[in-house]
Amino acid sequence: MKHMHYTEVEEEIPAEEGVKDTTIRWLISEKDGAENFAMRVFTIQPGGNTPHHQHDWEHEVFVLEGEGIMRSQDRREPLKPGDFIFIKPMEWHQMINESDEIFRIICLIPYKK
Amino acid sequence: MKHMHYTEVEEEIPAEEGVKDTTIRWLISEKDGAENFAMRVFTIQPGGNTPHHQHDWEHEVFVLEGEGIMRSQDRREPLKPGDFIFIKPMEWHQMINESDEIFRIICLIPYKK
Repeated sequence: MKHMHYTEVEEEIPAEEGVKDTTIRWLISEKDGAENFAMRVFTIQPGGNTPHHQHDWEHEVFVLEGEGIMRSQDRREPLKPGDFIFIKPMEWHQMINESDEIFRIICLIPYKK
Repeated sequence: MKHMHYTEVEEEIPAEEGVKDTTIRWLISEKDGAENFAMRVFTIQPGGNTPHHQHDWEHEVFVLEGEGIMRSQDRREPLKPGDFIFIKPMEWHQMINESDEIFRIICLIPYKK
């Protein structure tokens, strides 16, 4: 059993192009023996964003803190704490923080078999 | 893409024996096309608990609100918002609310292949 507070997990800068003022914490991953899916926390600073992209795996997202924007292929939807989003494989998505406060989400991904 | 607030999802009473004063909301599941894992929110009232049990799949848990206790095979650990827990397959676990406030967690499970 692994039990920690998310702030105890090292913050890393995602290597992906198009990331701005955003960090990732890998809370639960293959390193911990998780074989099916991984839990990460993203912290997006004011003015920051994740890339606008698509890929062949899904995301399951839950908003923890702050206000953000989810940009899909052709829409922008406001996000608030307690919102959740299921982003299906190949759906375009981006998280944007246009507020003055931190925007923080949980984002889970599968490990492809 | 599915985007809602978790309070918009119907609260259900888990059918499992040993559940007390606890509800479940299935935020993202097979019904939504999620093939790999499901996201649920459990709300445990003061005095409530989930069963003390084990099973052959893992849990990935994140504490949203309130204070709880995680009982494993031989220990009791306090839980607070921002804590996360990786419960491996076959590890004994139970969530208990001995506080005067609601205790709320996200709990994800794999869909076995």
